[in-house]
Amino acid sequence: MTDPVQDHIQPGDGKGGLAKLSVRRIPIDMHPDNTAYLLRHGNGYSAEQFQALRKIRISADGCEILASLGLVDDERIVGPGEIGLGEQAFRRLGLAEGNQVHIEQARPPASLEYVRRKIDGEVLSDSEVSAIIHDISRHLYSPMEIGAFLVACAGFMSTQETLSLTEAMIDVGNRLHWNSPLVVDKHCIGGIPGNRTSMIVVPIVAAHGLICPKTSSRAITSPSGTADTMELLADVDLSEEQMSNIVGKEKAVLAWGGRVNLSPADDILISVERPLRLDRFEQMVASIMSKKASAGSTHLVIDIPVGPTAKVRSQSDAVRLRKLFEYVARHLGIVIDVVLTDGSQPIGRGIGPVLEVRDVMAVLRNEADAPDDLRDRSLLLAGHVLDFDPAIEGGRGYARAYELLASGEALAAMERLIDAQGRKTGKLEPGRLRQEVTAGQNGRVISIDCERMARIARLAGAPMDKGAGIDLLHKVGAEVRAGEALYRIHANTKSGLGFAADLAGENSGYVIG
Amino acid sequence: MTDPVQDHIQPGDGKGGLAKLSVRRIPIDMHPDNTAYLLRHGNGYSAEQFQALRKIRISADGCEILASLGLVDDERIVGPGEIGLGEQAFRRLGLAEGNQVHIEQARPPASLEYVRRKIDGEVLSDSEVSAIIHDISRHLYSPMEIGAFLVACAGFMSTQETLSLTEAMIDVGNRLHWNSPLVVDKHCIGGIPGNRTSMIVVPIVAAHGLICPKTSSRAITSPSGTADTMELLADVDLSEEQMSNIVGKEKAVLAWGGRVNLSPADDILISVERPLRLDRFEQMVASIMSKKASAGSTHLVIDIPVGPTAKVRSQSDAVRLRKLFEYVARHLGIVIDVVLTDGSQPIGRGIGPVLEVRDVMAVLRNEADAPDDLRDRSLLLAGHVLDFDPAIEGGRGYARAYELLASGEALAAMERLIDAQGRKTGKLEPGRLRQEVTAGQNGRVISIDCERMARIARLAGAPMDKGAGIDLLHKVGAEVRAGEALYRIHANTKSGLGFAADLAGENSGYVIG
Repeated sequence: MTDPVQDHIQPGDGKGGLAKLSVRRIPIDMHPDNTAYLLRHGNGYSAEQFQALRKIRISADGCEILASLGLVDDERIVGPGEIGLGEQAFRRLGLAEGNQVHIEQARPPASLEYVRRKIDGEVLSDSEVSAIIHDISRHLYSPMEIGAFLVACAGFMSTQETLSLTEAMIDVGNRLHWNSPLVVDKHCIGGIPGNRTSMIVVPIVAAHGLICPKTSSRAITSPSGTADTMELLADVDLSEEQMSNIVGKEKAVLAWGGRVNLSPADDILISVERPLRLDRFEQMVASIMSKKASAGSTHLVIDIPVGPTAKVRSQSDAVRLRKLFEYVARHLGIVIDVVLTDGSQPIGRGIGPVLEVRDVMAVLRNEADAPDDLRDRSLLLAGHVLDFDPAIEGGRGYARAYELLASGEALAAMERLIDAQGRKTGKLEPGRLRQEVTAGQNGRVISIDCERMARIARLAGAPMDKGAGIDLLHKVGAEVRAGEALYRIHANTKSGLGFAADLAGENSGYVIG
Repeated sequence: MTDPVQDHIQPGDGKGGLAKLSVRRIPIDMHPDNTAYLLRHGNGYSAEQFQALRKIRISADGCEILASLGLVDDERIVGPGEIGLGEQAFRRLGLAEGNQVHIEQARPPASLEYVRRKIDGEVLSDSEVSAIIHDISRHLYSPMEIGAFLVACAGFMSTQETLSLTEAMIDVGNRLHWNSPLVVDKHCIGGIPGNRTSMIVVPIVAAHGLICPKTSSRAITSPSGTADTMELLADVDLSEEQMSNIVGKEKAVLAWGGRVNLSPADDILISVERPLRLDRFEQMVASIMSKKASAGSTHLVIDIPVGPTAKVRSQSDAVRLRKLFEYVARHLGIVIDVVLTDGSQPIGRGIGPVLEVRDVMAVLRNEADAPDDLRDRSLLLAGHVLDFDPAIEGGRGYARAYELLASGEALAAMERLIDAQGRKTGKLEPGRLRQEVTAGQNGRVISIDCERMARIARLAGAPMDKGAGIDLLHKVGAEVRAGEALYRIHANTKSGLGFAADLAGENSGYVIG
C-alpha cells in the first residue's frame, strides 16, 4: 500500500504558491525534537491544515529540515509572515534570522516504506537498511517512526540485516584513522555496576605501547559511564585533533565519544531504545560495532558478563551473542576476541563516579585494600588485549599486564594520560548524606542484584551528582551478622538519599543465606 | 527486566524537596502533545536534568498530566518559579494560572512492561491489555510508546487480544444508551472514494422506523468522511443531549462522533496508526467495534469492499476479516451481518464533500441521472439493515428499502433529519478551478485505482476545501476515445489544482484497454 497523500497537502494560500516566511529564532529548546512555530491566525492560510499531520518541511536554497509545528496565539512570540524556529531547528537549518524560507507539509521519508515492510515481517536488503539509517541520521524520522523501526527489528532481524545496520551506521558518521595496522580497544556490553575496567586496561595497554584510542559513552540509564567517571580526573570532551595529538604522544586516550560524531545514527536509535528498554542482541552488536569501527579499531576485546541479573543471563545466550559479534566483526575486517566473564555481582566496591575513581586509582596504585575483583578483571581483559601484539608469545598477555600494573608503569601511563587530556584538580568526595543498609539476618552473602544496585545508585543521584552512589561493604561469599551494614548509600540531596533508601528498603538487592 | 530507574530522577534542588512552581499558560498549541516550559537557568535546579529523559509529571491536588519539556531562554515567555503549560497541557491539567504545582521526572506507566512483553512476542491477558489502554486514554503514553505497542501488535495479535482491546477501548470512553432492544447501524471499513452510502441508508432506515443513531468520523487520510460531507447540509457537531432529542423525534441522526467521546483511546491509537500506515485487521476490528458498541448499537451491518486497490484485496482476506468481526461482535452481544461488496472502483461520481452531496441528493431525489452504483449499494446495505426488523419477513429488506427510496419517504426523512440537526444554507459549489484528465487512447475503461483517486482528490484540497475533489465522467466498462475527459479535478487554490494535476499526470489511475 502506498498512500503518503496525507503529507502532500498544500495550504490554501489563495495565491497558488507555497507559503514563504521569514525565519525567527524562538528561544525554546525541545531537545531532541525540531520544532517550528506559526501564528494560528492572520497568515492568510490555514495553520491547522499544516499541523493536522504533524510535520512540516522548511526549506531554502540548499538546506531543509523537518519540524513539528506549534500554533501560536501571541504575536510577541511569532508574528504574521514569520516562521519561528526552536533552538534545535534553528541550529540544524543553519540560516540567520530574517531569511526567507518555504514551508510545506513534509513528505514522509521514502524509506518509511521499508520500515512498513519490516513491520510486515520481511527481511530488508542492504540498500533498504542503508536508506532507513541515512534518513534517520538526517533527522527525517520522528521518535514514533524510529520506535516503529526498532520494534519491528526486535521482532526479527537476520544476521545479514544486523551487518547492514552496522555498516549503514558507520557510513553516516565520522571515521577516525590512526595510520597503524594495530589499533586495539576493549568494550564491555555493560550492565554490571562498578565495572570500570577501561580506566585500568587502557593505561596498562598504553604502558606496553599499543595504540588504544578509547572513546566511551556517558551513562544513559546506568549510574555511571566511563566518560562520567574519567571526567573527574581529566577533560574527556576532546576534539578529533586533540585526541590525535594525545594518542601520538601517549599511545592512548580515554575520551568521551560524543564530540567526534562516531555513528550519530546510533545515538539517535539509543535515544529511543532506552525509554522503550529495547535491548536486543542484534541492536547491541550493531551499536557497539559501528562505534568501534568508526573509532578506527582493528583489534577488539569484547567483555560479556554473564549472570542472573546481568544483560546476558545464560551461557547459551552468551554464545549466541558472541557468534553475532564474530560474524559482524569478520565482515568489517576487525579482529575480535569475545570474553565471557562472571557477571554475578557488581565489580569493585564503589558504584557512582567518585566512588569508582577511588577504586580505579587504588588498583593502579597497588594499594593493599584495592578491590581484588576489579584488579583481576582488568588484568584478564588487558591480557587479552596485549595478546593481539605479535611480539607477545603464547598467551603471555596476562603476565605482561600483571607486570605493568605491579611495576607502577600502568599508573605512570595513567598520570601522563590525565596530564595530556587536562588534569582536573577538584576534590573527590563521596556524597555527604549517607545511609547504611543492613543485613536482616546472620549468614553468608549469596548474591547481589546488579540491576537493583544500579537503580539505587541512580536514584541517589549518580551520575549527575558525582558523589552519589553506593559503597559495597560486603561482596558475595562474605559472612555477615544481622544488623551489620551491607552497603552505604551516598547522596548530596535529601530527596536523592530518600528515594534510594526507599528502594533499598523494599529490597536491599542482597540475598543472605 | 525491570529498570524504570531513569525516570525517577529527582532534581538536585539542594533542599531535598520536589520542585514547586506556579502555572503559567503559554499560547502555544503543539496538538496533540502536552508541552511544558521551564526557564533554562535561574531556577536553582538543573532543567536539563528534567529534560534528559523527556517527560515530566506535573501534579497538584487531584490532578496530574505528563508533558514533554521545553527549555526557555527568555523570561518574557516563562519566568523563574514558573512552569509554562502549552494549550493542550493547560487544558488537560485544568488549573488556573498562578496555581502551585509539583514537577518531577515522570515514571513510565507500569503498563509499559506489558508492551515490552508484547514486543517479546507474548500474548497479553485481558487485564494487561486493559491496563495499557487505560494508560493510553489518560495520555500517559508518548506517540513513540503508542507506536511501539501498535507495531508489536501488528506482528501478532490473538483473537482474544483483539476482543480484550475492543472491550478496554469501550471501557475507557462514554457509552450511549437508547432504551431499545433494536438499535441498528451500518459501517463501511472504508477505502472506496465516493462511497457515501450512510447518507442514503440512514434516511431509508429512519423512514422505516428503526432507531439508527449514526455517528461518523471526519476524514483523516481520505478525501472525505461522512461527517465532512454531511456537515454541508446540517450541523453534525451535536451533544449527547441533542443527539438523544433528535433520535427521539426522527429515529435517526447523522452526527460527528468526535463530540461525544466514544472510544477516545481509539482516536489516540488512530493518530499514530495513520502516519505509520498501520492497517492490521485486528486493529481495524477493535477500532470499529469499540466505536459501535460505545454508540449503543445492538444490530450492525458491516460493509467490506473487496478489490485490487481497496483495503481488502482478496476474497480469503475478506473472509478472515469477516470472521474476526463476527467473533468480537458475538462476545460483545452485538448482532452482526458482514456484507462483502465490490470494491473494484470508486462509488458514485463525485469524490470530495460538495461533489458527494450532489450524488447523495440525486439518489434521494430519484433523479434520472443519479449514479446507479451509489443507489444500488445503498439499497443493498439498507436492505440488510431492515432485515434486522423482526417484522420484515424472509429477506424482504431490499424490497422495502427500494420502496422507501422510490416513494420519496427516504428523501422526506432526510429533510426532517437536516432540519432537526440544524439546516445549513450555504451554496454548494464545486471548486471553481478545474482541470480535465483525458484518455490517452481509444478503448474501454478496465479499472480505476481507488487509492490514486483518493490521493488526487486529497491533493486538490478535499476535505478542508469542501468544493475540491474529483468528478468521474466515466466508470469501469465505459467506451472512451483518446482525448476524451475521464474525470475533472476541482479545486479552489492554484496550488491544490497544480499538485493534483501533477499526480494525475504521472498516472491517471485509469487503465484503458
